Amino acid sequence: MDFHGGNIYRIFREKNITEILDYSSNINPYGVPESLRRKITENIGILERYPDPDYVELREKLAKLNNVDISNITVGNGATESIFLFMKVLKPEKVLIVSPTFGEYERAVKAWDGSEIRKIEIEYFELEEKDEFLLNIRKLKKELKKKYDLLIICNPNNPTGKFLKMAETEEILRECNKYDTKLFIDEAFIEFLEDGLKESIVNSEENKKNLFVTRAFTKFFAIPGLRLGYGIYFDKNLEKKIAEKKEPWSVNNIAEMAGITVLDDVEYIEKTLKWITKEKKYMYEKLNEILGIKAYKTEVNFICVKIKDEQASKGMTVKKLKGKMLERGILIRDASNFKFLDERFFRMAIKDRRSNDRIIRVLKEILAERG
Amino acid sequence: MDFHGGNIYRIFREKNITEILDYSSNINPYGVPESLRRKITENIGILERYPDPDYVELREKLAKLNNVDISNITVGNGATESIFLFMKVLKPEKVLIVSPTFGEYERAVKAWDGSEIRKIEIEYFELEEKDEFLLNIRKLKKELKKKYDLLIICNPNNPTGKFLKMAETEEILRECNKYDTKLFIDEAFIEFLEDGLKESIVNSEENKKNLFVTRAFTKFFAIPGLRLGYGIYFDKNLEKKIAEKKEPWSVNNIAEMAGITVLDDVEYIEKTLKWITKEKKYMYEKLNEILGIKAYKTEVNFICVKIKDEQASKGMTVKKLKGKMLERGILIRDASNFKFLDERFFRMAIKDRRSNDRIIRVLKEILAERG
Repeated sequence: MDFHGGNIYRIFREKNITEILDYSSNINPYGVPESLRRKITENIGILERYPDPDYVELREKLAKLNNVDISNITVGNGATESIFLFMKVLKPEKVLIVSPTFGEYERAVKAWDGSEIRKIEIEYFELEEKDEFLLNIRKLKKELKKKYDLLIICNPNNPTGKFLKMAETEEILRECNKYDTKLFIDEAFIEFLEDGLKESIVNSEENKKNLFVTRAFTKFFAIPGLRLGYGIYFDKNLEKKIAEKKEPWSVNNIAEMAGITVLDDVEYIEKTLKWITKEKKYMYEKLNEILGIKAYKTEVNFICVKIKDEQASKGMTVKKLKGKMLERGILIRDASNFKFLDERFFRMAIKDRRSNDRIIRVLKEILAERG
Repeated sequence: MDFHGGNIYRIFREKNITEILDYSSNINPYGVPESLRRKITENIGILERYPDPDYVELREKLAKLNNVDISNITVGNGATESIFLFMKVLKPEKVLIVSPTFGEYERAVKAWDGSEIRKIEIEYFELEEKDEFLLNIRKLKKELKKKYDLLIICNPNNPTGKFLKMAETEEILRECNKYDTKLFIDEAFIEFLEDGLKESIVNSEENKKNLFVTRAFTKFFAIPGLRLGYGIYFDKNLEKKIAEKKEPWSVNNIAEMAGITVLDDVEYIEKTLKWITKEKKYMYEKLNEILGIKAYKTEVNFICVKIKDEQASKGMTVKKLKGKMLERGILIRDASNFKFLDERFFRMAIKDRRSNDRIIRVLKEILAERG
């Protein structure tokens, strides 16, 4: 399996190495919060109990954070489980995916079993390079007239790093409501924006019956190995169906405990926001100083980069670049398999200043070799 | 949700308590192995990486343990995930479940989406009380002539505690092969038998294309909160389908590490086998000394008990008994909602001698009150 291109284990096995500077996965460089390390060490005994199948304590905490009712929250094994769960329940047959974006949505749409029985039609709404990958809402509204069952948006968007504020997502939701089109928004990276949670569509006063949102603990709290995410939905009629389709105990005790613990770690949250606010600006500027590449402005902790024509004409592709970076112990994300992107595009995480400076230096050297 | 009747969290919330002697869930009383405690404490940093999506190290270990190829192994979030996964892939429409047994099989059969489209026929093959709940293979073979898509057996069986040795499961597999009936065997408790793994159907020399087996780490290694189990299958044609239906990263890093660690903890495994071999005999004998109940002989770490007519005629039901036990801080498993059982039946874990003596004393007192 090759999810996200971030399968470092395969690289480890193939190259017979065990260390790499992994810029292909977008994890907070501060690492596992100290508060969580302590909590786990002191509470390993909780493994001797089954998790609470209803996850009441964690769901209450998340409900409070988002100013919704506990019945609006479903927790999952990573955001992934909630994405798959929503698709299993919604069973959309005509889907519009705003792209380029995270590939797992398409996989989740195709995975609901009916796909083998009914034909599922998936269309892609293009975020255009000429618009700097910003969403053209006017155009999208026109497209929505085709009455989709479901519109999928990643916000902030992976891999382009752009964010739609509430005024914009609200406009889209209103339009979806006109046609009874469900709106699924993945907010896996929203915490990396200082006003992210405030600008989430979850706070909208619109009718949210058609709205489905997922969030992840993975990236912001640097615990991708723990698998914890959640979904927010507002259609009361779906409660029973969601309970039926959900496999029991998918979130383990340590993940549950983590969710309850890290949300209170104000110090970690604040230092992370301070770091990313500064570092995303730094990376954007420094990358654009390198000849032969263009970095797109980002709102979050990864950045989308294009190899410019001047380099491309000399035969530089992202595949070649990735290989050369790997020789120097750095892994970047080849973005050529994202819909509407090609072999000129790659994505990089944003990490601590020292690592960022290293990747900038290495990129500069590799591109200069060919200049 | 009310899985297994083991939702102690709901009881905690309703009764506003936080401690209970939980005889409703069947967990090794030795608790989390020391080797695993140490491993987790020293390796919390692994949470900063995504799990290996292919779980190669863990699957190799399990393949070796079971003398099969790594391609025969699929790991899951508890045995539950593998049960649900097999059903999603097999999509059985005519199913025979040997009962009374664990309720999750029926739920998994019903959960594959087609169930909303096609009608699923579920039949139950009765383990009869008059046979001490032993499986009547001759009768089962006759029933199999009806050409089921799938036969489900829990072995050792929950809640009856009976075990079919390989000679018996092989006879059943041979019969299934005649009709191309798939055979699903859940071996979640097999490690509690001294010769369990040796007597597993996995070692059979029969054609195993129709065989699907699940195992759990949960019970034997006392880590139900960690969620780790696996499936073993032999039909090469299903490999791709299983990969498609499986949600990514469902086993988190700590669970993966646990799997790799605890299988090597020979000391823990040996002391557990020593304890259960002695204690299951003790509980069986002591419980049968109590007037008014009958305990069924068990091969594993739980025991099925019936309230005899002499007590039932005085109005004693398992619901009443459970309530009275709970007043004394002990939770037992009401088994009346198992198919073919009624309000006379309950199930109890087998724990350490001190706790076992306590539950025996309390049971004796409660039943004497009414005598």
